Amino acid sequence: MENGGIMKKWKFKVNETLLKASNKTVRGVLNMVMENINNDDDDVRQVIALGHGDPSCFPCFRTSPLAEQAIVDSLLSYRYNCYAPTVGILPARKAVAEYLSKDLPYTLSADNVFLTLGCTQAIEVVLSALARPGANILLPRPGFPYYEARCAYIGLEDRHFNLLPEKGWEVDVDGLEALADDNTVAMVIINPGNPCGCVYSYDHLQKVAETARKLGIIVIADEVYDHLVFGSKPFVPMGVFASVAPVLTLGSISKRWIVPGWRFGWLAANDVHGIFLKSGLIESFKSSLNVSSDPVTFIQGAIPEILEKTTEEFFTKIINVLGQGADICYNKLKEIPSITCPHKPEGSMFVMVKLNMSLLQDIEDDIDFCIKLAKEEKMVVLPGTAVGMRNWLRITFALEPTCLNEGLERIKLFCQRHATTL
Amino acid sequence: MENGGIMKKWKFKVNETLLKASNKTVRGVLNMVMENINNDDDDVRQVIALGHGDPSCFPCFRTSPLAEQAIVDSLLSYRYNCYAPTVGILPARKAVAEYLSKDLPYTLSADNVFLTLGCTQAIEVVLSALARPGANILLPRPGFPYYEARCAYIGLEDRHFNLLPEKGWEVDVDGLEALADDNTVAMVIINPGNPCGCVYSYDHLQKVAETARKLGIIVIADEVYDHLVFGSKPFVPMGVFASVAPVLTLGSISKRWIVPGWRFGWLAANDVHGIFLKSGLIESFKSSLNVSSDPVTFIQGAIPEILEKTTEEFFTKIINVLGQGADICYNKLKEIPSITCPHKPEGSMFVMVKLNMSLLQDIEDDIDFCIKLAKEEKMVVLPGTAVGMRNWLRITFALEPTCLNEGLERIKLFCQRHATTL
Repeated sequence: MENGGIMKKWKFKVNETLLKASNKTVRGVLNMVMENINNDDDDVRQVIALGHGDPSCFPCFRTSPLAEQAIVDSLLSYRYNCYAPTVGILPARKAVAEYLSKDLPYTLSADNVFLTLGCTQAIEVVLSALARPGANILLPRPGFPYYEARCAYIGLEDRHFNLLPEKGWEVDVDGLEALADDNTVAMVIINPGNPCGCVYSYDHLQKVAETARKLGIIVIADEVYDHLVFGSKPFVPMGVFASVAPVLTLGSISKRWIVPGWRFGWLAANDVHGIFLKSGLIESFKSSLNVSSDPVTFIQGAIPEILEKTTEEFFTKIINVLGQGADICYNKLKEIPSITCPHKPEGSMFVMVKLNMSLLQDIEDDIDFCIKLAKEEKMVVLPGTAVGMRNWLRITFALEPTCLNEGLERIKLFCQRHATTL
Repeated sequence: MENGGIMKKWKFKVNETLLKASNKTVRGVLNMVMENINNDDDDVRQVIALGHGDPSCFPCFRTSPLAEQAIVDSLLSYRYNCYAPTVGILPARKAVAEYLSKDLPYTLSADNVFLTLGCTQAIEVVLSALARPGANILLPRPGFPYYEARCAYIGLEDRHFNLLPEKGWEVDVDGLEALADDNTVAMVIINPGNPCGCVYSYDHLQKVAETARKLGIIVIADEVYDHLVFGSKPFVPMGVFASVAPVLTLGSISKRWIVPGWRFGWLAANDVHGIFLKSGLIESFKSSLNVSSDPVTFIQGAIPEILEKTTEEFFTKIINVLGQGADICYNKLKEIPSITCPHKPEGSMFVMVKLNMSLLQDIEDDIDFCIKLAKEEKMVVLPGTAVGMRNWLRITFALEPTCLNEGLERIKLFCQRHATTL
């Protein structure tokens, strides 16, 4: 039988649900932008990526040698080549519980900590456990589109409340309240903020917790950028308000230790009132973990050492480089008339900036901006549309300063070239 | 507001879909059995686990030092702390393609290889891509219940064809054909076999491929135990028949290298006729990978070294220990009248044995057998019900010989104690 014959038999097609979910992810959008990079030999410049939060390739962002050694020791101990329990090995769960408890007014138990493949799997587990027919969840706009992608995949309705640029990207609490109904199960808050670089005050977080209590919904606190703050406000974990409303904390070593490729994160149920346990959600988290993959066991084995012994010196170094990057970024962007930065970043690795379309010509929108920037300047920037904000951009400042400067200079030249002529 | 008040607001419950899926997994059932282990101080014996295929804790099953060193080198190179592309890094995809191509009559391209979190994520990706309303998939009985669990989770109908103990656990091809209809998308074949320890001949695999062609369905070849054979038959990869029917090969380093905790596997599309590409399935695999987590990047970085350079000496050592275990197991079980082993294992790490219930008293069924065995003998064995065969047991022989002997002796004593009095 020739190929034509065999082809007719197998009638498959693209899984549209998966494709739709995939297209929502940052990676999906960045891949699209990157396809427009000019790779001709006549342009010898390096590609500069301000698109994603992964500075691990830069020497100034190298992880702590202690963390690397902990992994080597764990691996060579031969004790962790085995499968791990689906919830994670106990010493690592305990270490995460202690790590988080340092900043809380109560002590988290290891039983309330579940180890995950980075923060992304924590998102998957939580959304899967909460999904049920008719349920909806409230997500921030702008936000982190992996939430939208997973909601699309599992069929959980997402509704969006605004973050207010003029108020340091605080949650529009009135808008949030107006969105909720009897089928609303939870809300998501990302602090320090991706994509906005904002850091929420104690008072604002308390207000959010009180609103969640009023609405009878869970607060999912995405704290993957925990402690990465360099402005005037300290990092306050949402778990501080777990007596006000039930809080699920999502975190990871990916950002603070600059090791996103290690795929280690957690989900912690701040279960002060025993709501997660009694309602069966803890059971659902365990079920969800039973039907998915686990973090590498020898990485779990290294976690107590990494969380307990990493020096303040390492953390301070990383914060300093990030703070310097935020300064460079904010000041450089001020030189570009067609770009407005409403709020100087105080945390995480990102800033959201607005395109003043009336000052740009030959540019249709933010996506067109990013595609043309890729073509003309060998650069990757995330169009705001990907995070829910048309004609905005998400820019990362987590790069080595020279590289960051060069990237921002290219954006400036690009904007000058495309400026409207008066 | 006191606890009673706050509790009333949050009305959640267990996610039944997840729970149902989770209860189907080997881990779910083994957890249930393990809860019955007698931990009283008066029984000082060690727990012996013949329940799962993970001998990594035994010195004689230690992985190759070369593999461990490859991981250390990759980690310390500082090049792989970053996120990886969702499909995997190119050198590792290429290495897997070359590894698999050694046993194929054609060369697999790196484009057709997708890196996954162990073989389990490969299963997730394939089933998710194939799922569509009304579709069904044919699974072997006995089989590996993770397939059933994922099918339950994503809503893909599973139908079961029998493996025939009296024919060395070959596929009941007539029964398979009778199950299929227009909505059947694929079938699963596990070779070397879990839970049966069978190894399929070239002729039998060809017959299966021809049946799949006739039915117009994909063959999902679960080869996580590839090359772990110690009987008279060589390992033949299903990909050899990819010109007959489209074959998806699922594999991993977990078993051959005895490192299940490293969570590294793959999905390879043996796309001789371009069916996977043209039908959009390749696109669906990519979409699925875009909305899930990736294997650890520094493990991916070590894969070329591990796949290319591991010595035959290491593989032979592992095969010899496994073969010795299979002998011990088969011979020892022959001494127990109430247990029948229809087929001596020739591969993988497992054997299926039948309980002769008429020769046992005070034992209701296989589950009761395993629970009482756990209570009385501090042992874990998987009830056959978990893999679709009531009143059978799945036993692993992948243990250090002394430990295996001790475990089998305890089963013998248990059966003697519960033997019917004539």
